[in-house]
Amino acid sequence: MSRNGTIKETMAVHFEKVTIIGVGLIGGSLAIALREGGLCGNIVGVGRGVRNLDTAKRLSIIDSFTTDPAEGVKGSSLVVVAVPVLSTAAVVKTIAPALEKGCILTDVGSVKQALIKETEPLVPEGVHFVPGHPIAGTEDSGAAAAFSGLFRGRKTILTPTPGTDRAALSIVREVWESAGSVVVEMDPAIHDTVLAAVSHLPHMIAYSLVNTVADIDDRMGGKGGDILAYSAGGFRDFTRIASSSPGMWSDICAMNRDAIVGVIEDFQKTLEELRRSIEACDTERIIKSFERSKRVRDSIKD
Amino acid sequence: MSRNGTIKETMAVHFEKVTIIGVGLIGGSLAIALREGGLCGNIVGVGRGVRNLDTAKRLSIIDSFTTDPAEGVKGSSLVVVAVPVLSTAAVVKTIAPALEKGCILTDVGSVKQALIKETEPLVPEGVHFVPGHPIAGTEDSGAAAAFSGLFRGRKTILTPTPGTDRAALSIVREVWESAGSVVVEMDPAIHDTVLAAVSHLPHMIAYSLVNTVADIDDRMGGKGGDILAYSAGGFRDFTRIASSSPGMWSDICAMNRDAIVGVIEDFQKTLEELRRSIEACDTERIIKSFERSKRVRDSIKD
Repeated sequence: MSRNGTIKETMAVHFEKVTIIGVGLIGGSLAIALREGGLCGNIVGVGRGVRNLDTAKRLSIIDSFTTDPAEGVKGSSLVVVAVPVLSTAAVVKTIAPALEKGCILTDVGSVKQALIKETEPLVPEGVHFVPGHPIAGTEDSGAAAAFSGLFRGRKTILTPTPGTDRAALSIVREVWESAGSVVVEMDPAIHDTVLAAVSHLPHMIAYSLVNTVADIDDRMGGKGGDILAYSAGGFRDFTRIASSSPGMWSDICAMNRDAIVGVIEDFQKTLEELRRSIEACDTERIIKSFERSKRVRDSIKD
Repeated sequence: MSRNGTIKETMAVHFEKVTIIGVGLIGGSLAIALREGGLCGNIVGVGRGVRNLDTAKRLSIIDSFTTDPAEGVKGSSLVVVAVPVLSTAAVVKTIAPALEKGCILTDVGSVKQALIKETEPLVPEGVHFVPGHPIAGTEDSGAAAAFSGLFRGRKTILTPTPGTDRAALSIVREVWESAGSVVVEMDPAIHDTVLAAVSHLPHMIAYSLVNTVADIDDRMGGKGGDILAYSAGGFRDFTRIASSSPGMWSDICAMNRDAIVGVIEDFQKTLEELRRSIEACDTERIIKSFERSKRVRDSIKD
């Protein structure tokens, strides 16, 4: 890799060979963005499923592929581990002996503390691990769903540790900026609380809401017909995330357990307060609560 | 009004004069659909705000308007009360002496039991009250937001009571079918439980979620930056309904209190179960719960 500090904004970073482990929506989209940004020569894809890798090669997302992670990372100056959070450490353990000295290793996991704790000790001396998390995604998955604009205008959070090499951190920042992302550095613990609140909690609520409505439907035994037939656009928008991968979200629950349990408890208190206000017909309190929520929500651009 | 039973599907119903009280998104859209369907001659709009009525007239949604409800309903064979649920009874009380004999009176309120209990006794002898609820809406409001396709493909629930005239019920059904709606008849109590589950509960949850995240943000005191900046599309879709009118939703809470408190309690049980599973790292149980939710959610067409 070469790095020219004087022309930082354009083509400051170049990797001869990049390895993407897990060529799904995130890994695949980053590969496309890296190539479009002119940041890399060769891109090697690594995965377990040959079919998905074949698709990725056919779509020119990657130049070649292998199902052997250690083989795949040989000679790479940038290795991106884009696998489910619970598998990241195992992948790093497998590739560790094959990583080039000076190589940059980064990930895209949506939980950082537990992942860093498991992964960082496995990274060999001379390899630079930079934990990262692009906040982007759709309900689709796999290489076929990948597109270069996925990260455009989206935040990517980098969570350096005391051991993180500053130069490597700066290079990973440029990689994500080149993909159109707005890069922010954050303490791993803060990251996990923030994501528990704005991402993990909504998913837990959406899953629970759909199950509750299904329970009510079961209980009504057809008296209300198929209750979901009466849901309008609001319910559909609201519960779309309940279609997300159960396996991926179960992993996230395991990896960010304490933060998730904490924000669920926060939410439970707020909902219980509202329930009591409704029960007591405390209109003033109800309106005050709805108005605050509307004010906060209206401040987010859609 | 004339009704020709032999050509039921086309132009079976015709009203010389229709009065829409509350020319907002719902009332205005129904007026447009009635006119496009050739179901009416003259449409009179009634409201409190002259500005909105002026807009409605300028957009040819209504032919004329008045701010005097009793004046507005004179000579009408169809009167649609499309005001907030908590105001419906008061409006009906005001117009009752001015309603024509044989006239059909209907409403669009999203709560039915309490509304019927308050309203039905106020309806004069010889006037036919048909309680209804079109399940449609956007976050926008006012006549300017109205459009003829609002009800197309959407369910409209009619909740007749033992006192409801069957011929009037059948005519109101044709009105909504002509607007493109799929009409369903339902017991008022069932309606209120179904809507509490698929509409009122999601709104209560969305308001509470946004407030919880705002609390966490306050507590972090800027350490996480503006926490909402890290929300992705999922959170935005999920919380869009928290931008809904606080006044309207406070009214709904008052009118459907028991059913809403009931479904909140159901949801609280389901969420607490999930919280415990996460705390106990009970992966099997977590995945089972997520999978059920995904299966149910995937069954709804977006």
